[in-house]
Amino acid sequence: MIVVMQTAAEKEQVEGVEQKLVEMGFAPHRIQGAGRVVIGAVGERKVVFPTGLEVLPGVERVVPIGAPYKLVSREVKEKGSVVGVGDLKVGGSEIVVMAGPCAVESEEQLLTIARLVKAAGAQVLRGGAFKPRSSPYSFQGLELEGLKMLNRAREETGLKIVTEVLNPQEVELIADYTDIIQIGARNMQNFSLLREVGRLKKPVLLKRGLAATLEEWLMAAEYILAEGNFQVILCERGIRTFETSTRSTLDISAIPQAKCMTHLPVVADPCHASGTWKLASPLSRAAIAAGADGLLIEVHHKPSEALCDGPQSLTPEKFSRLLFSLQPVAEAVKRTVCVGKDLSMTGGL
Amino acid sequence: MIVVMQTAAEKEQVEGVEQKLVEMGFAPHRIQGAGRVVIGAVGERKVVFPTGLEVLPGVERVVPIGAPYKLVSREVKEKGSVVGVGDLKVGGSEIVVMAGPCAVESEEQLLTIARLVKAAGAQVLRGGAFKPRSSPYSFQGLELEGLKMLNRAREETGLKIVTEVLNPQEVELIADYTDIIQIGARNMQNFSLLREVGRLKKPVLLKRGLAATLEEWLMAAEYILAEGNFQVILCERGIRTFETSTRSTLDISAIPQAKCMTHLPVVADPCHASGTWKLASPLSRAAIAAGADGLLIEVHHKPSEALCDGPQSLTPEKFSRLLFSLQPVAEAVKRTVCVGKDLSMTGGL
Amino acid sequence: MIVVMQTAAEKEQVEGVEQKLVEMGFAPHRIQGAGRVVIGAVGERKVVFPTGLEVLPGVERVVPIGAPYKLVSREVKEKGSVVGVGDLKVGGSEIVVMAGPCAVESEEQLLTIARLVKAAGAQVLRGGAFKPRSSPYSFQGLELEGLKMLNRAREETGLKIVTEVLNPQEVELIADYTDIIQIGARNMQNFSLLREVGRLKKPVLLKRGLAATLEEWLMAAEYILAEGNFQVILCERGIRTFETSTRSTLDISAIPQAKCMTHLPVVADPCHASGTWKLASPLSRAAIAAGADGLLIEVHHKPSEALCDGPQSLTPEKFSRLLFSLQPVAEAVKRTVCVGKDLSMTGGL
Amino acid sequence: MIVVMQTAAEKEQVEGVEQKLVEMGFAPHRIQGAGRVVIGAVGERKVVFPTGLEVLPGVERVVPIGAPYKLVSREVKEKGSVVGVGDLKVGGSEIVVMAGPCAVESEEQLLTIARLVKAAGAQVLRGGAFKPRSSPYSFQGLELEGLKMLNRAREETGLKIVTEVLNPQEVELIADYTDIIQIGARNMQNFSLLREVGRLKKPVLLKRGLAATLEEWLMAAEYILAEGNFQVILCERGIRTFETSTRSTLDISAIPQAKCMTHLPVVADPCHASGTWKLASPLSRAAIAAGADGLLIEVHHKPSEALCDGPQSLTPEKFSRLLFSLQPVAEAVKRTVCVGKDLSMTGGL
Repeated sequence: MIVVMQTAAEKEQVEGVEQKLVEMGFAPHRIQGAGRVVIGAVGERKVVFPTGLEVLPGVERVVPIGAPYKLVSREVKEKGSVVGVGDLKVGGSEIVVMAGPCAVESEEQLLTIARLVKAAGAQVLRGGAFKPRSSPYSFQGLELEGLKMLNRAREETGLKIVTEVLNPQEVELIADYTDIIQIGARNMQNFSLLREVGRLKKPVLLKRGLAATLEEWLMAAEYILAEGNFQVILCERGIRTFETSTRSTLDISAIPQAKCMTHLPVVADPCHASGTWKLASPLSRAAIAAGADGLLIEVHHKPSEALCDGPQSLTPEKFSRLLFSLQPVAEAVKRTVCVGKDLSMTGGL
Repeated sequence: MIVVMQTAAEKEQVEGVEQKLVEMGFAPHRIQGAGRVVIGAVGERKVVFPTGLEVLPGVERVVPIGAPYKLVSREVKEKGSVVGVGDLKVGGSEIVVMAGPCAVESEEQLLTIARLVKAAGAQVLRGGAFKPRSSPYSFQGLELEGLKMLNRAREETGLKIVTEVLNPQEVELIADYTDIIQIGARNMQNFSLLREVGRLKKPVLLKRGLAATLEEWLMAAEYILAEGNFQVILCERGIRTFETSTRSTLDISAIPQAKCMTHLPVVADPCHASGTWKLASPLSRAAIAAGADGLLIEVHHKPSEALCDGPQSLTPEKFSRLLFSLQPVAEAVKRTVCVGKDLSMTGGL
Repeated sequence: MIVVMQTAAEKEQVEGVEQKLVEMGFAPHRIQGAGRVVIGAVGERKVVFPTGLEVLPGVERVVPIGAPYKLVSREVKEKGSVVGVGDLKVGGSEIVVMAGPCAVESEEQLLTIARLVKAAGAQVLRGGAFKPRSSPYSFQGLELEGLKMLNRAREETGLKIVTEVLNPQEVELIADYTDIIQIGARNMQNFSLLREVGRLKKPVLLKRGLAATLEEWLMAAEYILAEGNFQVILCERGIRTFETSTRSTLDISAIPQAKCMTHLPVVADPCHASGTWKLASPLSRAAIAAGADGLLIEVHHKPSEALCDGPQSLTPEKFSRLLFSLQPVAEAVKRTVCVGKDLSMTGGL
Repeated sequence: MIVVMQTAAEKEQVEGVEQKLVEMGFAPHRIQGAGRVVIGAVGERKVVFPTGLEVLPGVERVVPIGAPYKLVSREVKEKGSVVGVGDLKVGGSEIVVMAGPCAVESEEQLLTIARLVKAAGAQVLRGGAFKPRSSPYSFQGLELEGLKMLNRAREETGLKIVTEVLNPQEVELIADYTDIIQIGARNMQNFSLLREVGRLKKPVLLKRGLAATLEEWLMAAEYILAEGNFQVILCERGIRTFETSTRSTLDISAIPQAKCMTHLPVVADPCHASGTWKLASPLSRAAIAAGADGLLIEVHHKPSEALCDGPQSLTPEKFSRLLFSLQPVAEAVKRTVCVGKDLSMTGGL
C-alpha cells in the first residue's frame, strides 16, 4: 500500500503515519518527492481496506497495490479453471449453451421447450422456479413444483439444469434438483447466500450485479471459494448505464478483462442484457468472439404468452438459427459449439 | 398502456394487437396518426409488465401509463406518512438524527459513542451487528453479541436503535433487539428479506440500491407494504456514477422527487454516499434544505481505529458542530432539529 | 405524441390541453382510462421537443411517439448506406480497417507506421494532427505540419487518410488534406462543427460522445445530413460508466442497435474504448461479430515512446496478428477483411 | 508517480523501468514488497500522462500522485478566488443569482422577464442568443439580434448579462455584448473555444460536462487560466446517470468537493439539472446549503409558450418565492442573498 501525504503535511504527521504502519505490521519506506512525501508500506496484505490511515492528520489518500481477492486471482492460479457439470466442461474448448424459458410456467411449457432446445443443440436447460421480480404483483414462480418439473425435463431430455436461488434457506432444496445453482444479479452481494452456496459441492453460476465493478464481482466469487467451493462460473449479464435504447449494456470488455484477472470461466447472457431477442444473435456472436466460455439464452415457444421476459426470448426456430450462426464464430476463435437439428427448417421437432 | 405500432405495420397486425388486448381485458382505442397507428388500452392495470405485446408482429414498443406501485403512491395517499418509533416521529416537523458507528466493535466502544451522540442531540443510535462486507476477509460484525450491546446502549441512554438485517432467517432475532430494522443498499431487491420484514410490526429503514431507479426503490417498498407493514422510511445513500472523487453520488434530487411520488418519509445518509467525513456537513445541510426528514451520520470516537468506514466517520466533536450548523438550516425550511451539548467546547462529555 | 394527464386532472384542464394541441396543428384524440385521461395527438411532427405542454395544468407527462431524427432513419431509407472513400466502400461486405498512431509525431514516425500497417493490410491511415487533449500541457499535435506528413504518407503508400478536426475554422484546411474527416467524441455535439462538415462533399467519421445516447448520436449525424452531406460513418468508441478497470465501456450492443435505427454504416474503435492494447484483439473480433463495418486501431512502432495513448497502441506485429485473427470472424458473418503480410513472422517489413 | 510492477516481473524488467525513469528525469526509489516491486519516481511532474511506462515489460500499472492541474489548484492558492463582474462579486459572501429565459425569443419577451427578475432580486440576466440544440430542426437562437436585445435589457435594468458562446469565431462578438461569457456543458472540452475565451479579459462561466469528472472539469478551467484569464466561475449543472425520473442528476457533492480541490467559485444550475421547475426550489436551497456561490435559474413569464426548456422554467412569481425561501438558508450558512419585491403578492410588477 502507498500512503500519499498532503503537500502541506508536517514532519510529525509523516512520522505519525510511519509509526501507525509499524503498529499494523508494515515496514514503511519514505520517499521524499519534489512536492510531498509518499510512504510505501511493505508487508503481507493482512489488513483489510479501508484502513484507518486516511483519517490520520496529513494523509491525502491511500493507494492499495495488490488486488483484494486471492483465491479467484489469475496470479494465484495461472491456468484457467474448468468447471465440470457431469460430463460437461465449462471453460474448456467447447462453448456451453444453456437455454430455456425465463420462468418455469407449466410442465407442458417446460417439456416442450426442453425438447426443442435439446434438439437444437443446447446442453443445459435454464428456467426459474423461484423468480426475483421487481414487482410484488408479478408472477413469482412455481417454486417447488417448478423444481420438480425441471427434474422431469432432465430425466426426459438428459439436459443439465441451471436454476436460481434467492434465499439462503432454500439453497439445500434447490441444490437437490439442479446441476448448477444460479446467483442472480440482484443477489451478487447477498453474502449470506454466497456463503451458503460456498458450502455446496456443486457448480455455481454467479451473475454480475447490475452496477458491480469487476473487482466487486470477483470479491463475491471469493466469498464462495473461501467457503470451499471452487466450482464458480461467472456470468456477464449487462450493466446499468445511461443508455436506454437497450435494457442494459452488455459489458463485452468484461469478458476478456475478467479472464486476465481470474482463472474462473466466464459466460454471457445477451438476452437479459439487451432486453430484446433482436440483439441476441449479434451479441451472442460478439461474446464468443471476445472469449466467452458459454451462453445463456432465453427460449420460449410462445414468447407473446410468456409469463416473464417474453420480449427477450427467442423462438426455438430463431434459437436454432442462432446456434448455426455461432458455429463459424466459435471455430474462428478455435472453439467448438454443439449444433443439432435445424429447427427453422423442420418447423419445430 | 399505449401500444406504438411500427410505421410499416399492416392492418392485420394492428387488429392482432387489438384482439390480444381484448383477451387481456383491455378496451383498445385505435388512433390513426400521420405515420403510424397508436393503440390506447383502457382498463385496470391488472397485467404485469413486461407484457408479451412487444413480441407481436408490427409492434414497435409498449408505453406503460400509470406507475407500477400502488400502496406507496402519493396518488393513493396524498398526505405524507409519519412513521412512529416509540415517541419519535419520522416524517413530522422534527428532523430525526440517527448517529453512531458503522459497526458495533465492543461494549466499551458502543457505549462511549452512544453517550456522546446522545449528549450531542441524536435520537437514534445506529450500529451494525451483522455487516455486509465486500470482502470475506473483512470484519463481519459481532452478530448476536453486537445486538446485546445495542440493547444495553438503549437501556443506558434511552436512544432508539437502528441496525441492519442481512438474512431472512435473522429478521425475527434482530427485530427483538432493534426499534428500526434496516435493509441495506445491497439488499434492496432481496425480495425474500423484503417480504420477511413486511410481516413485522416495526419500522423498516429501506436504503436505496446503488443503481436503483426511484421506481425500483418504490417497488421494493411496495413489497413491504404489500405484506402489511406500512412503517417504511426510505433512505437515499448515494448512487453509483462515473465520478470517482467521491465514493458515490448523493442523489439530492431524489429526496424531493421521491416525495412527489410517494407519501413515505425520506432520510439521507451523507457519510456512506460521499465516503468521507469532510463532506458530511455540507451534504447534511443540503439534504435538510432539499426536504429530508432525517439523517444517518457515522460517528466514531477514534475513526483511525474503526474496524470499518473510519474515513467517513465524524468524531463526536465534529458531529456536535454539525448539529449546531444544521439548526438554522432546519429552521429555514420550517423544521426543527434537536441539538444538545456543544461537545466541541467540552472536549467530549 | 401522447399527453398523459394527472389522475386528478379536471375536465377543464383536459380541454385546455386539447385546445392547445389544436392550436399547435394536432388533432387530439381523448382516451378516457380507468384512472386518468390520455390524449393522443395526431399530426406531422412539426413541433420540436420539449413542447410547452408539460407545464399546462393537469399534465403529468408527454410521450413522443416517432423518432426525432429523419434523414438518418432506417424508416426513411431501408437499405444500408455505403460510404465511398475513393475506391473503398464503408458499409459494404468488406470490413474496412483504419490503423495508425494516435498522433502524428514526425515524418519518420508516420511513414514507418504507415508502411507497416499498409503491409499488414490496413486500408486507411489514421493519425491526429490537431489533438484534443484533456490537459493544456499535453502535446497538442503538429497541426499543419502533421497534415502535410499525412499527405506524404498517402502519396507513398496509397493509404486513405482519416484525421480529426477540432475547430469550425479549420474544416476547410483539414478537408484539403484528408479523405475522411473525423469528429471526435468530445465534439459530437459541437453543432457549429457539425454544420461546417455538413457542407463538405467528403466522408465524415462521427464518433459517439462519451455519454451520448444512441438518439443523441443519430441527431448529431442528422445535423450533418441536414446540411447536405450524406456521407457519414458512425463510430462507437466506448461510453463512460462506473466501471474503472477499463477506460471506458465499449457498447457492443450499440452496433446492431444503431443499425436497426439508421441506414448509416457503423465502425468501432476498441483501442480508445478499452484504453489498453491487451483488449484490442478480443474487442475487435467482438465488434466484427456484432456487425461492425470497420475498425479503427491504434498502431505505433514504439508504444513506450508514443506522445499519446501508447498503452492502447498495438505494435505492428500485434496488429498484423490481429488482422489474421479477424479474417475467420469476418467470414463467419459473411464479410471479408483484407489481410496482408504476417509482420509477426518477418519482424516488420 | 508510482510504478507498480507485476508480481512476476523479472529483475531486468524492474531495472528497465528504473532506467526509463532516469531518462525521463525522475529519481527512482525501489521498494521491494512481499509480493512485488513498487517504484516511486521522484521529480517535478514535467511529464504528461499517460506516459509510455505502462507498456514496458513487467509493468502492471502507473499511479499518478499529484493532481494534473496547477493554476486552478487550491494547493497553489489557498484562498478562494472572487470573480468580479463590475461591482458584483462571485465567490464573496453574497450569493449571486442569475436568472432569465433559456433563449432570447423577442425584445418584448426578454425585457418583460428582465424587469421581473430584476424586481425580484436577481443580479444577472441569463438568456441564450446562440443555442446548442440536440436537433437541427429546433430553434437555434436569434444570434446577433438576440445579443442586441440583451444589451438593451442591460441598459434598461442595470442587470449584468451572461450568455453562451458556441464557436471560437464568435467569442469576440459575444464578448462585446456580455458581462460573463458562458461555455456550455457540451463544449466543456471544446479546447479551441476554451483557449479563445482564455484570451479575454472577462469572466467565464464554465459549465461541467454531462459526463465530466471533477478532474476533467478542472482541467478545462486550467486551459482558460493557462491562457491568462483567471476569472473563471465553475457551474455544476447535473451529470448523466442511469436515473431517468429527473433529466440529469445534480451532483451536489461536487460543490464542496470542487471547493476542496480548487480556489475558483462554484455556482449551480438546478433547472437544467432536474429538467423541471418543480425541483428548482429544493435544489436551489440544497446548493446554497452545500456551499454554492450562486445560482442560475430559468425564468419565463409564459413557460408553456417558451421556445425552449419551458418545463424547467419558473414563472416570475415562483422565482420570487424561491428567493424569499433562499434567504434564511443563505443566512444559515453565513451568506446573504439579495431579495427584492414579492412578485407572488403583486402578481408581477
